[in-house]
Amino acid sequence: MSQPINRYKADLRDIRFVLFEQFKLQDLLGKAPYANWGQEEVATVLEELYGWAKEQLGPLNATGDAAGCTLEAGKIKTPPGFKEAWKSLYDVGWRRLSVPEKFGGQEGPFTLHAVSEEIMCGANAAFNMYPALTQGVADVIQEFGTPEQLAAYCPKLHDGTYAGTMCLTEPHAGSDVGSATTKAFPMGGGKYKLKGTKIFISGGDQDLSKNILHLVLARTEDAPAGTKGLSLFVVPRDRSDGTSNDVQVGSIEHKMGIKASSTAVLNFGENDNCIGELVGTEEQKGMSQMFHLMNYARIGVGVQGLGVASSAYLNALEYAKDRKQGPSIKQWKDAAAPRVPIIEHPDVRRMLLDMKAKVEGIRALIIKLAVHIDKVNAAGGDKTAAEYHQGQVDLLVPLVKAYGSDTAFQVCVTAIQTLGGAGFLKDYPIEQYARDSKIFSIYEGTNHIQALDLVGRKLGQRGGANLQAFIKDVQAFAATIKDDATYRDAAAGLSAAAEAVMGTAMRFLGWFGGGKMEMVPLAANRFLEMMSETAIGWLLLEQAAIGEKALATLAADHPDRAFYTGKRYAALFYAANVLATVPLKAAQIGKEDRTPVEIPTEAFATV
Amino acid sequence: MSQPINRYKADLRDIRFVLFEQFKLQDLLGKAPYANWGQEEVATVLEELYGWAKEQLGPLNATGDAAGCTLEAGKIKTPPGFKEAWKSLYDVGWRRLSVPEKFGGQEGPFTLHAVSEEIMCGANAAFNMYPALTQGVADVIQEFGTPEQLAAYCPKLHDGTYAGTMCLTEPHAGSDVGSATTKAFPMGGGKYKLKGTKIFISGGDQDLSKNILHLVLARTEDAPAGTKGLSLFVVPRDRSDGTSNDVQVGSIEHKMGIKASSTAVLNFGENDNCIGELVGTEEQKGMSQMFHLMNYARIGVGVQGLGVASSAYLNALEYAKDRKQGPSIKQWKDAAAPRVPIIEHPDVRRMLLDMKAKVEGIRALIIKLAVHIDKVNAAGGDKTAAEYHQGQVDLLVPLVKAYGSDTAFQVCVTAIQTLGGAGFLKDYPIEQYARDSKIFSIYEGTNHIQALDLVGRKLGQRGGANLQAFIKDVQAFAATIKDDATYRDAAAGLSAAAEAVMGTAMRFLGWFGGGKMEMVPLAANRFLEMMSETAIGWLLLEQAAIGEKALATLAADHPDRAFYTGKRYAALFYAANVLATVPLKAAQIGKEDRTPVEIPTEAFATV
Repeated sequence: MSQPINRYKADLRDIRFVLFEQFKLQDLLGKAPYANWGQEEVATVLEELYGWAKEQLGPLNATGDAAGCTLEAGKIKTPPGFKEAWKSLYDVGWRRLSVPEKFGGQEGPFTLHAVSEEIMCGANAAFNMYPALTQGVADVIQEFGTPEQLAAYCPKLHDGTYAGTMCLTEPHAGSDVGSATTKAFPMGGGKYKLKGTKIFISGGDQDLSKNILHLVLARTEDAPAGTKGLSLFVVPRDRSDGTSNDVQVGSIEHKMGIKASSTAVLNFGENDNCIGELVGTEEQKGMSQMFHLMNYARIGVGVQGLGVASSAYLNALEYAKDRKQGPSIKQWKDAAAPRVPIIEHPDVRRMLLDMKAKVEGIRALIIKLAVHIDKVNAAGGDKTAAEYHQGQVDLLVPLVKAYGSDTAFQVCVTAIQTLGGAGFLKDYPIEQYARDSKIFSIYEGTNHIQALDLVGRKLGQRGGANLQAFIKDVQAFAATIKDDATYRDAAAGLSAAAEAVMGTAMRFLGWFGGGKMEMVPLAANRFLEMMSETAIGWLLLEQAAIGEKALATLAADHPDRAFYTGKRYAALFYAANVLATVPLKAAQIGKEDRTPVEIPTEAFATV
Repeated sequence: MSQPINRYKADLRDIRFVLFEQFKLQDLLGKAPYANWGQEEVATVLEELYGWAKEQLGPLNATGDAAGCTLEAGKIKTPPGFKEAWKSLYDVGWRRLSVPEKFGGQEGPFTLHAVSEEIMCGANAAFNMYPALTQGVADVIQEFGTPEQLAAYCPKLHDGTYAGTMCLTEPHAGSDVGSATTKAFPMGGGKYKLKGTKIFISGGDQDLSKNILHLVLARTEDAPAGTKGLSLFVVPRDRSDGTSNDVQVGSIEHKMGIKASSTAVLNFGENDNCIGELVGTEEQKGMSQMFHLMNYARIGVGVQGLGVASSAYLNALEYAKDRKQGPSIKQWKDAAAPRVPIIEHPDVRRMLLDMKAKVEGIRALIIKLAVHIDKVNAAGGDKTAAEYHQGQVDLLVPLVKAYGSDTAFQVCVTAIQTLGGAGFLKDYPIEQYARDSKIFSIYEGTNHIQALDLVGRKLGQRGGANLQAFIKDVQAFAATIKDDATYRDAAAGLSAAAEAVMGTAMRFLGWFGGGKMEMVPLAANRFLEMMSETAIGWLLLEQAAIGEKALATLAADHPDRAFYTGKRYAALFYAANVLATVPLKAAQIGKEDRTPVEIPTEAFATV
């Protein structure tokens, strides 16, 4: 149990396919703002990162889960080996791929960052929480900090001397961030005394970095209620002279998964001696500043799901090729027939193809989103292009976070089932993947919060133009394959799904306007699912179309034929089994089932 | 963490409703074969059992999970408190409710046994594995053993002196039981020397009982290949003089859940000194004898799911009533609005109603099955009635096992989401429920094995008469509510679902006959789901109809109104959101998607 061996598997072939064959990242490289990078460099970096992750992070995944984090004399200890991994990470420089040059980074595209996160999360989701949050904190300070703050904090956050955390949640304020009551008392010169308790703080304490910078949402005395009154502060754990800044670890949580990622209750200013700095120079900008980080953090959660689910799938695939059980279905009546690898059994293949389509579909969705971000940055003076790409970013973030995390967990559960009894054992990595991934649907805004963000904010942005552009893109693609015999049904299904999404979006407009507000939260999750399934059905079919073109030119014995053939079946499977459900979901939403709000509260149970 | 407090909750009101208002168990009581029992006695026993389970088993659930089982010097140790709970269980006599009087039991109906299992599993699924398997072993010996075996083993299995296990799986033979290679060498007088290795043996060793009787499937030298050649043996861990019978614990598994239930590798006859007895007097009857146990064990797995899921739901409900977060949706724009309990938020209510409908639906399905079993036993000379009820038992077992376990796990996952971040913590029982319940879809025949049993064996039994009778029952009920304004749509949906089930069953016939064998496993899981959803939709609507009748007679302030009102909403919610998907699933099956068998194996991934 918990031998320090690597179990992590990534599919670099598929990653390269999505980057360079589907989304043509190379078109953005070799010029501003990614002048330092070419396709070769990106591919080489990913190859090397994968090697490093398998060597340094993979072996610590099960051992970290078994050891967990411990709280001793007010300090949190991470599992054995984490300190060395942290040092190696920053020595090699994997966290600086997309950091600006002025902070010692390599100024790569966000897409490269996202893909590198897939690999680091997949190898060790718990470990990667520490550096990923640290990078997020650096991003916020870069974006909103004073020049002094940039100089004082960013280089040290990028070289691993400091780590960072996000402190939003309080005992009574989780999803309802706006009711946070942590107080900030101005001392002049941008300094404040902080007082309050924050909970669920990932990396709230650890023994990896020399110091920790907490980004704390707090309220000055005269500030208005709700999220609008919140300001953002940098609060170091230790002062520059090494003494305590009165940030105490109240306790550590014991969790279902990501056990090697510490989760702390932090008490700020119990001795009235906790001093923080306002981020930038303006109070009451905290929520929008934090949202800058949260947007990336939400994408990051989708990426976490992808990394873990992809490895779960590839481990299940390996097991299914290896494990023999039962005769072939063609000889099922013959007790003496030879035993075959379970991958020959139709239901095992069904589970594998289901996982493949979902993993590759989420990867495509995430990389599509990432490339939109890079295109915003590369748009230069082209305002129309920048608006279009930013609109798609805004629209896709809740899909990536919520559908990505829900689907990742499902994939892990299917992977358990593929292994049968072995899937329930700690001898294989998959039960841990399932436990680790369950949190992804909850943190950084529960998946229902994402759905409300989608229907309540994103659909209406720019007068609905973002959604219209999305639907237009989907329908334009569907038209390109509608006469192909292999894809005719799938194209019709995609088109119908896109129409169902648009029609349902109009319903939400009606509910907002027509006094049926309660239908909005009741239908929001299902709408997010419909739209995600439409997006993924589209992107998988786009992959299949690229695959067909490649197959038409490749020699019959070319080793790449298997890869492209796989694209055909993943897309057709997803179209037949998932995409086809979208219009039904629309029809169900249309029936306006209100039973959950109609049932009297006392009728749920009388015990 | 892991304080020894009870977290278990059961809904006795709903249990009594299903027993006495829906399925009229009382009609079978007070006469043979349940002459000792009346409605009052059953209700009182359940009340007392619930009290005992909360006091004795509930507090050991989290502590047992934290401590797990350990292997020391070849012996397995169970968690602290388990020995005392075992003693208390048999002292009070909770395992003897449905045991024949001649073995010291109370000869109650199977239905009472099933409901008592819900309570004992729900309070502590891991603990209950030991006595539940023990009772299963006693049943097999009672059914198939010689008079000497009955006298020697049954009383001690029923009073907790002995425990029992089922030893089927071998390292290379899990789902493929028929390829088991454990050998039995006759010594004369019904004794055999056993030699082989069995894995995944629940309760394979423990420190609760004085001795353990292993029921071992093994093959005599001349026996044919496959399941037909297997014989069943009773193999005690210790001989009657207390010396070892050469059954060694090879190792203990480390698992995702049910950690307090030991799972062992057992080596029989490593020193050629392991002696067993043939069960009964005939060789090569092992598989059908084991199936007798497995049928009950499969129902038992569905019951495990129900017990855990019901407590997950009730815990989530309690949390949702208690936890305040955010303003009411009616005041969502007002940052200063008072915070409300999260049960007031529509999406939380949606999750709760989803859990309620599924938990109460599975309970109805299980108790329906149990009552059919009792009606077989009570049929006396009425062969037609006995055949009908036995047919329904055969048909419903795979539904209870597979849909019950899959749905239970889903309910636990939804319960985690209802709690948000708290759901991921060990401070609440729900993350453990999710981990524990994941195994239910795998053991006692994976859920795909159940689906194959349904479509490959059960649909065709008695020339299809069992399914026809089931559909007839559903349609007859649907006709009774089709003109009721509240239930008109639901009745039409139920009727359409039943038609879709029947139509799909005919497709399977066609595939078996028409050389499309591969469609059978590809569509089997989905068909099992369709049929289960139809059954549960029916039973929930039946409950609602009973509820409406009660509501029509109860005073406006009668405390039971809330309970019956809940039945209306659970049924309508399930009809609108689950039952309505059944025809779509039939349509999807009808498209005969063959992508999983068409994709070349090398195309799944090229890594």
